[in-house]
Amino acid sequence: MWGGRFGGGPAAVMREINASISVDKRLWREDIAASRAHAAMLAMQGILSVEDAKAIDEGLLQVAAEIEAGQLQEDLALEDIHMHVEHRLSQLIGDAAGRLHTARSRNDQVATDFKLFVRRAIDEAVLGLDALESVLIARAEEHAGDVMPGFTHLQSGQPVTLGHHLMAYREMIARDRSRFVDARARMNESPLGSAALAGTGFNLDRASTAGALGFDRPNANSIDGVSDRDFAVDYLHAAALCSVHLSRLAEEIVLWASQPFGFVKLPDAWSTGSSIMPNKRNPDAAELVRGHSARIIGDLVAILVLLKGLPLAYAKDLQDDKPPLFDAHDLLELSLAAMAGMISDLEFVPERMRAVAAAGHATATDLADWLVSEADVPFREAHHISGRAVAAAEAAGKALDELTLEEFRAVDPRIDERALPRLSVEASAAARRSAGGTAPERVREAIAAARAQIAAREGK
Amino acid sequence: MWGGRFGGGPAAVMREINASISVDKRLWREDIAASRAHAAMLAMQGILSVEDAKAIDEGLLQVAAEIEAGQLQEDLALEDIHMHVEHRLSQLIGDAAGRLHTARSRNDQVATDFKLFVRRAIDEAVLGLDALESVLIARAEEHAGDVMPGFTHLQSGQPVTLGHHLMAYREMIARDRSRFVDARARMNESPLGSAALAGTGFNLDRASTAGALGFDRPNANSIDGVSDRDFAVDYLHAAALCSVHLSRLAEEIVLWASQPFGFVKLPDAWSTGSSIMPNKRNPDAAELVRGHSARIIGDLVAILVLLKGLPLAYAKDLQDDKPPLFDAHDLLELSLAAMAGMISDLEFVPERMRAVAAAGHATATDLADWLVSEADVPFREAHHISGRAVAAAEAAGKALDELTLEEFRAVDPRIDERALPRLSVEASAAARRSAGGTAPERVREAIAAARAQIAAREGK
Amino acid sequence: MWGGRFGGGPAAVMREINASISVDKRLWREDIAASRAHAAMLAMQGILSVEDAKAIDEGLLQVAAEIEAGQLQEDLALEDIHMHVEHRLSQLIGDAAGRLHTARSRNDQVATDFKLFVRRAIDEAVLGLDALESVLIARAEEHAGDVMPGFTHLQSGQPVTLGHHLMAYREMIARDRSRFVDARARMNESPLGSAALAGTGFNLDRASTAGALGFDRPNANSIDGVSDRDFAVDYLHAAALCSVHLSRLAEEIVLWASQPFGFVKLPDAWSTGSSIMPNKRNPDAAELVRGHSARIIGDLVAILVLLKGLPLAYAKDLQDDKPPLFDAHDLLELSLAAMAGMISDLEFVPERMRAVAAAGHATATDLADWLVSEADVPFREAHHISGRAVAAAEAAGKALDELTLEEFRAVDPRIDERALPRLSVEASAAARRSAGGTAPERVREAIAAARAQIAAREGK
Amino acid sequence: MWGGRFGGGPAAVMREINASISVDKRLWREDIAASRAHAAMLAMQGILSVEDAKAIDEGLLQVAAEIEAGQLQEDLALEDIHMHVEHRLSQLIGDAAGRLHTARSRNDQVATDFKLFVRRAIDEAVLGLDALESVLIARAEEHAGDVMPGFTHLQSGQPVTLGHHLMAYREMIARDRSRFVDARARMNESPLGSAALAGTGFNLDRASTAGALGFDRPNANSIDGVSDRDFAVDYLHAAALCSVHLSRLAEEIVLWASQPFGFVKLPDAWSTGSSIMPNKRNPDAAELVRGHSARIIGDLVAILVLLKGLPLAYAKDLQDDKPPLFDAHDLLELSLAAMAGMISDLEFVPERMRAVAAAGHATATDLADWLVSEADVPFREAHHISGRAVAAAEAAGKALDELTLEEFRAVDPRIDERALPRLSVEASAAARRSAGGTAPERVREAIAAARAQIAAREGK
Repeated sequence: MWGGRFGGGPAAVMREINASISVDKRLWREDIAASRAHAAMLAMQGILSVEDAKAIDEGLLQVAAEIEAGQLQEDLALEDIHMHVEHRLSQLIGDAAGRLHTARSRNDQVATDFKLFVRRAIDEAVLGLDALESVLIARAEEHAGDVMPGFTHLQSGQPVTLGHHLMAYREMIARDRSRFVDARARMNESPLGSAALAGTGFNLDRASTAGALGFDRPNANSIDGVSDRDFAVDYLHAAALCSVHLSRLAEEIVLWASQPFGFVKLPDAWSTGSSIMPNKRNPDAAELVRGHSARIIGDLVAILVLLKGLPLAYAKDLQDDKPPLFDAHDLLELSLAAMAGMISDLEFVPERMRAVAAAGHATATDLADWLVSEADVPFREAHHISGRAVAAAEAAGKALDELTLEEFRAVDPRIDERALPRLSVEASAAARRSAGGTAPERVREAIAAARAQIAAREGK
Repeated sequence: MWGGRFGGGPAAVMREINASISVDKRLWREDIAASRAHAAMLAMQGILSVEDAKAIDEGLLQVAAEIEAGQLQEDLALEDIHMHVEHRLSQLIGDAAGRLHTARSRNDQVATDFKLFVRRAIDEAVLGLDALESVLIARAEEHAGDVMPGFTHLQSGQPVTLGHHLMAYREMIARDRSRFVDARARMNESPLGSAALAGTGFNLDRASTAGALGFDRPNANSIDGVSDRDFAVDYLHAAALCSVHLSRLAEEIVLWASQPFGFVKLPDAWSTGSSIMPNKRNPDAAELVRGHSARIIGDLVAILVLLKGLPLAYAKDLQDDKPPLFDAHDLLELSLAAMAGMISDLEFVPERMRAVAAAGHATATDLADWLVSEADVPFREAHHISGRAVAAAEAAGKALDELTLEEFRAVDPRIDERALPRLSVEASAAARRSAGGTAPERVREAIAAARAQIAAREGK
Repeated sequence: MWGGRFGGGPAAVMREINASISVDKRLWREDIAASRAHAAMLAMQGILSVEDAKAIDEGLLQVAAEIEAGQLQEDLALEDIHMHVEHRLSQLIGDAAGRLHTARSRNDQVATDFKLFVRRAIDEAVLGLDALESVLIARAEEHAGDVMPGFTHLQSGQPVTLGHHLMAYREMIARDRSRFVDARARMNESPLGSAALAGTGFNLDRASTAGALGFDRPNANSIDGVSDRDFAVDYLHAAALCSVHLSRLAEEIVLWASQPFGFVKLPDAWSTGSSIMPNKRNPDAAELVRGHSARIIGDLVAILVLLKGLPLAYAKDLQDDKPPLFDAHDLLELSLAAMAGMISDLEFVPERMRAVAAAGHATATDLADWLVSEADVPFREAHHISGRAVAAAEAAGKALDELTLEEFRAVDPRIDERALPRLSVEASAAARRSAGGTAPERVREAIAAARAQIAAREGK
Repeated sequence: MWGGRFGGGPAAVMREINASISVDKRLWREDIAASRAHAAMLAMQGILSVEDAKAIDEGLLQVAAEIEAGQLQEDLALEDIHMHVEHRLSQLIGDAAGRLHTARSRNDQVATDFKLFVRRAIDEAVLGLDALESVLIARAEEHAGDVMPGFTHLQSGQPVTLGHHLMAYREMIARDRSRFVDARARMNESPLGSAALAGTGFNLDRASTAGALGFDRPNANSIDGVSDRDFAVDYLHAAALCSVHLSRLAEEIVLWASQPFGFVKLPDAWSTGSSIMPNKRNPDAAELVRGHSARIIGDLVAILVLLKGLPLAYAKDLQDDKPPLFDAHDLLELSLAAMAGMISDLEFVPERMRAVAAAGHATATDLADWLVSEADVPFREAHHISGRAVAAAEAAGKALDELTLEEFRAVDPRIDERALPRLSVEASAAARRSAGGTAPERVREAIAAARAQIAAREGK
């Protein structure tokens, strides 16, 4: 009947599908914190005697110490972490434990625990992003003036500076941070006191438990309190998009470390080598950052699909909200740490980057721009003239900036000697001084601005 | 060779896969607005003559008028909306059109156009959410005191008020609004002037074009400017989660409209009927709101996957960012309007809701709570006593609140006459006066608070 | 630097992100089986001495016994299950262990192990589907003649039989089975011998290892051999669609068990109860089956996204293929067992089903059909007449089949006495005798046909 | 109320959300074919007069001719393609049109139409795959002996042949084909005659309509007939996985066309160029193939999510099944044609590929293998010796195959003169003659085998 697996019959299958302790035991810290806040509030409101409250609090600390010490005994019959804690508490302090569940339900309890976990996950993500941002800025500063090819379509287009390229990722990281910060502000309302779904007739002080647990306020509607999982979706969205950014950067590391590119050398610490191929340094960590992004996207999908069809209020489907969240949390944290480490330790090879940038007449746009601004040629026409100059260079077997003035004049007489110094890759990059442009001075300004933002943030 | 379909050979297939005009023509308003801002700025900076700028501006207004009038001629050879507009402009004003593209590229142009579209989509979503919020609040007020079964696991648990239930959706809608507002603030930086990817050597005033287009500032990094699509992902996330909320509400409408529930009557305007089954009113609009949510989730997946593996800067893959965004936008707008209409016109059947709420001894929790608060019985014990009372009612063929005091005392002598009035569904709901609880007075407070928030918002 | 978490610096982060032993230890059986087949073949081909081969085989059996006994020592430095096994083997048998890795690589080794696991997962899924199919058929037979409302749009449309409804799920299950069987046939080629990616110069007998491991043949291309993960995607697709079917059935169980429907009673073994609300039987298992489906869909997304951007051949991203597959496997197996159990033990309430079917003039279509076939009225007109009859019944406060012949004639004189017996729900269902229709005789034929298919299958 | 957009009030919103004509008009051919088959069968069974059947058939042909000529007038009030066709038919032939809908419903009608479309989409995909397969085989034959670097982790590992690399994609394409063929066999059952959901009391010959429409048989259960969309999910799965394969190949084209790689030159027909950068050939078509894959994955997600929560039988959510299917169909067909074209026209640069293959001592594995097979060194030890030889080559500033015999002997005296000829990249590739290996002779065998499969297929 059970497909051969479940010798125990219905009871065994039901117990296995129903129990969540193997997953939600990760919430033990949050569960105990929420119970302590609840008990303290009940006592303040006169719903619990001071003696009982004291016994409960000491008992919970004892349970916490036991779990910290690895002594949690998982028992499928006790289903989840809430019942494990309460059961152990009743063993320790007897009947008083039975008063802890006054005016609450597992529905608001699990919502509270899970929110506390997600809030901490957000805080950890912000820390990880801050670390990566610092590394990006430091490496960008080192290479603010080094030229590399700027790619579009993975074709070398215009020269850019490596510092500028790295600072593009800093922008993504800064948006990721803001996304997590927004999510935290939106979710920081306490569901505790929502009870089963309708609130309770006990005279609770929900603001007190909210404050004790670091929430800004109690949430406004008890039915929403037990059925809302927006906070988990917001976290998974921020994590998924952040992981996409990390995946893009990881993709570049993999490309740059390939022999044909040769833009970077991966340090030993961040690659797996081969004892027989010395130039083979497999960028495993970067590849895994890419892979983890795929899984985090899958986790985001899982939770959206989970919620989509559910009528109010609590449904057991919601028990499946935790595995994707925990998975994404672990993968994101590891990806952020690995990426900060890789970027920090990466050995760039600027001379190889410059060589690729200089190939292919990449400053032809600069000639066209010069024609527009100095010889008043309409852009579309200047573009064609520049194309003819490149053809002349090709024919002469030279790079564009190796053509003589005479050769340029043969292409178009409006080109004069002022144009020539514009055509090195360094001059090209330096010329792009528009706001947000790749010129080294702009990159250094961007770095200074980013540091000022960080200082302002930390000063706060 | 081409699988039989493409008689024209490679050129035909390439043209078809490459052209985006059939999709991005929706951006014509944004494209013309951005070009006008760019030309005006070029003139202010002395990069363009005043005459050319004037010709360009008038020409663009003429192009806009023609497209508004339905005269856009789609031509695959012109690929996209940018080239269609520029091509038509050059027909209208000649060479000056060729100066418009000075100091910009299709890369920053499309990023600007698309951002303007998404920003408008956000504003429309906020309007749609505000309309739905108003309807929910109005219906909640009407039914603030009407009792319905509060479900968990789709099992009738405790009585709640219909107003409270509807206000739970108002909370979701308010979070949706805040999510869109956050996304708008994060994305409102102008990419215009990022040029191909490196910025430009022309002396642009990027703050000026940013201001003219309603952006808060230019974005900080030109490479990020042309490759960032976070704003589209943020929109799709907010849209997907909002659609999930709408899908949950739609699921309830479908359930409530079924014959076994009978909680609502769908008005003619929002159902398709059957001429032969008068009580059959198919809730098509609600079902389609559910279906649309599935598609919007698919759209979110598409864009995350699209971005995941791309190195910097621009890649043509990004052309596939628009179809999912446009699709989600259209589906969300329609879903919001349909849901506001349905909720507004829905005929609730409170007497049927009350009858279901009253079945099943749903106030047994109230008896337990009374024992805790009035007879100092530990909650876990009170819970057992209440269970025995329900068994006694079952045995006597009565509802729980029909038991006599003697019958209650037989269950447990600590139950006294004060307990009995607590056991009607109205008393049960009224008792749950904890903050955010279902008691009618709390619901009315929540409505007042919501209205105060709206007033504050609009006053701002 | 590491976001506070990784005290050990780069080495610790790298080791943690790189190691897969905590996940791929599940492949130990497959790993040892593949190594044994490889060693035996090497010996047959004279590449390995018989003594070495014997030592390796006995050593591997010893390692297997140790792991079976729970003695695997996880060591992040040994990275994965392959190195754990080889390392332990070298401890047991010394230098000969170093000859096992001749003519293979971890790339083909892991592909082989993973394929063996997925093939077994397919076989388990088929067993689980067969069990569920048997239960569905048995319950359909019990209720082949019981009438229930046939819903469209969750509105009661036409009467159907419960047996017919259950057999619809049997059809889905049969397609699921065929999908798994097709996937198995497509994937059953051995990658062993593909080596790192290029094949090997050793004189292997790949057909021999393929045969020993139950594969139909070696795969045809070594680069494909190490980079192909189609088999995992096919499994996840079949699992996702199967889980969607289970979710649909679970959705019905949740609905049917709700108080307003009351179509089924959930047995104690498959519900969690409430000591105070006796009629509350939370359908937790059904809800979790729905939730699991969301997670399996997420797993399918993860693997598709993982593969999408990868150039050939092996990339470390592929290490992230196992967590989604293992997750989906565990969830599907549990879901199938739980669903078989629930359907088997469910207590249907046919009288309640019939009552809902009989409400709402659900046989109005039968009147229209009668007019078409017996009175030669065009269908569209017959449909209108039937609508008027329903209106007359409504006006008279009767069910449609309670109208008198006179009352029918007043609606349309072409209705005669032969029409009346057609209008009970039993007559309606019995009349739908078209192939595949809901008539009890058709349902019994479908059951017989299904059983014949099963017998043919098993006879093979 | 309607968010500002819907001036027409509820009716306008309802009409817009409810109508599907703008999407399902693509099914007009299928709709008319199914109606013709249905009418012919009704006449054969005596349910319809021969005159009426004739009028209907001629009318339907007339409607088809009009739609073919672009004369379909879309009208939201007529909702979908079925009503448009029937409405126009009734204008053309009057009352007889009303008899066409006898014994069917829009529920089985749309299921039939959609199945016919998907079946055709499968057939088109198979054609497209066959074309791509032929191109891959032809190009593989051209380059069966050309050496290129075999990458793992995008690091050059061992030399392979370009022909072998291309044949790896042929394997994927062959699996894609088999996946579509399996899906076709599984889905080819006719839902026509399932009626609304229960079958019908008319004496239909469902086998006749099934045969007329090319189905293998009628489907077995009418409820399943109107609610099954497995066929669309199977198509989308096969399309998504196929698009992932195309995306992997496209990723390689983008990489290979980059300046640092320089492995291929993109022909003009398949790239967009730059008039000023002659070596810039943007691989737009390849990038779009990658992008399309993301969207097809999103489409697959949409339909799985759509179905997940639906109870039986038909629900209006199912109307949202068509947009993702149509989208995926169009994107896949275009991607297949573009990829066949690109592969056909691509100009490979074997000398550059060989140069990269020869760099980095890529034949070190061959030295290790020689030590194992000729000098009986255990593989793990041979691996270390080979590593020392590479170090010696590095120190001497030579490639591995440039070391003298003396230099090799200094590393390990067991290396003799027979080893040296093994160390060129050509010798390395040629040596890998294991079944499925990269040796040119094996590649040519694989090509012959593939052609034999194709011939057998076509002979059938």
